[in-house]
Amino acid sequence: MTNKPEILVIGLGLIGASFAKAVRKSANAYVLGFDVEKEVPPVALEMGLIDEVVDDLTQVRQVDVIIMAVPVMAIGKVVEQIRYLIPGLTVLSDVGSVKGEVVKSVQDVLGELPSCFVPGHPIAGAEKSGVTAATDDLFKNHMHILTPLPESTDQAVTLLTELWSGCGAQVVTMTVERHDEVLAATSHLPHLLAFSLVDTLARESENREIFKYAAGGFRDFSRIAASDPTMWHDIFLTNRDATLKILRRFQSDLGLLEQAIEHRDGDLLRTVFTRAKSARDYFTEILESRNKEG
Amino acid sequence: MTNKPEILVIGLGLIGASFAKAVRKSANAYVLGFDVEKEVPPVALEMGLIDEVVDDLTQVRQVDVIIMAVPVMAIGKVVEQIRYLIPGLTVLSDVGSVKGEVVKSVQDVLGELPSCFVPGHPIAGAEKSGVTAATDDLFKNHMHILTPLPESTDQAVTLLTELWSGCGAQVVTMTVERHDEVLAATSHLPHLLAFSLVDTLARESENREIFKYAAGGFRDFSRIAASDPTMWHDIFLTNRDATLKILRRFQSDLGLLEQAIEHRDGDLLRTVFTRAKSARDYFTEILESRNKEG
Repeated sequence: MTNKPEILVIGLGLIGASFAKAVRKSANAYVLGFDVEKEVPPVALEMGLIDEVVDDLTQVRQVDVIIMAVPVMAIGKVVEQIRYLIPGLTVLSDVGSVKGEVVKSVQDVLGELPSCFVPGHPIAGAEKSGVTAATDDLFKNHMHILTPLPESTDQAVTLLTELWSGCGAQVVTMTVERHDEVLAATSHLPHLLAFSLVDTLARESENREIFKYAAGGFRDFSRIAASDPTMWHDIFLTNRDATLKILRRFQSDLGLLEQAIEHRDGDLLRTVFTRAKSARDYFTEILESRNKEG
Repeated sequence: MTNKPEILVIGLGLIGASFAKAVRKSANAYVLGFDVEKEVPPVALEMGLIDEVVDDLTQVRQVDVIIMAVPVMAIGKVVEQIRYLIPGLTVLSDVGSVKGEVVKSVQDVLGELPSCFVPGHPIAGAEKSGVTAATDDLFKNHMHILTPLPESTDQAVTLLTELWSGCGAQVVTMTVERHDEVLAATSHLPHLLAFSLVDTLARESENREIFKYAAGGFRDFSRIAASDPTMWHDIFLTNRDATLKILRRFQSDLGLLEQAIEHRDGDLLRTVFTRAKSARDYFTEILESRNKEG
């Protein structure tokens, strides 16, 4: 690898295009960009997010790093197309929300896990999507979780850490299994609850008249129910076990609150609400201290 | 009543103090203020929110309007103290989150429902609380729900509508029962889910380490879990039946999603998520059109 790393970003949606823009600046990288939607890479080139358009994944010259910024369920197909490049890579990584499924897809296609492969997941997003929403500060002050495998080289982990840190992210590592549990709890379950609640209320009320009376709390609570249904369909199918585990714990805890309301057990309600408020206030402190550091 | 209505606001928290400030300006009202915390009314006077401090509720000259801006479970005690003023009132109202309980408290104390009494509930709030957070645009472009009783005079409903409209609110009327159902669905259940989820996650994780990895979706979703535990304890005890009804419908619907994940029924997941996204997008439109009108 020369001093100017060559990086191929596959998938120029919000995450891929923002990473391209940020890493091009921070690592002085030469960035090649591909997308299944053929009109997207020229837009990225025009916007100054990438240096070169890739038209055909099966005809790319050797690069140093490949980041697969595609839906989790598309990883297998991408790996099939770029397998000829893998022996020459320093790093192969991705940005998917479910790491177990990504690892399984790579293993299924290649029959082994290459030593350049280090799965990753930026805990960042925005309400807008697509290449035109790309911004080079999307990852600033956000976590980037790496899940190195037993096969991964130290060199791959180190380079990937440098690249994402350079984009402003706080890089942490954990196992694939822990990642999928943590995300099931902090992201996948809240999305499921928001989708479910909004659907219950919409069906409860003729002409959705009930939403007219909803206030700010409901607005904040339900915002994530506007997320992409296909992406979330994929996430729940691929992170099935970890989601079911935390969902069932939640259902059991919610059942205790239901019983407390039914039996007018004010002490239990107050205890749970107070404990939750304390935890939420702690979470607010974490967010505020992270923003101050930035 | 003279052209300059005299209004007594009992309880100078965020809602009461903001109403005092707004109505003093919009209706050219003379506003008297009382609070159980004796140091609060002088602050309100100093801030220009009220015209006169009331020290003792049992020693007030006749006014035209009384707004009880106190917790639902404190209404009975307030009504006992001001019952001598009720025959001379044009309007007696409140701002509580559970209308059935407020009506029951007034009935229990007085043995009847006075014709000046029109329960009310502004669908507004803010992250800050207390007299110092008062703002005269708190109700602007927000719903104010009135629940007139069979006993309520048209004059009381009309004057109350004028006062809240003058504060910028969009005034609507519905029955007490419908109000408590609507709020159970759009406010009380979301708060219960947020409290419950945050508590489940906090207990799931040693040292609450899991919150470090939570992103914006979780932040928005869980914000309402930072609400006052005592207030919410009161709400769930007093709006018990309506909350249990919608909670059980939600639990049943969530159970269907759990089964869909378990049985890898991607079609059901996509159908529910798509329907929920459509309803949430509709809700966003309502909010945006309301803000444009303002």
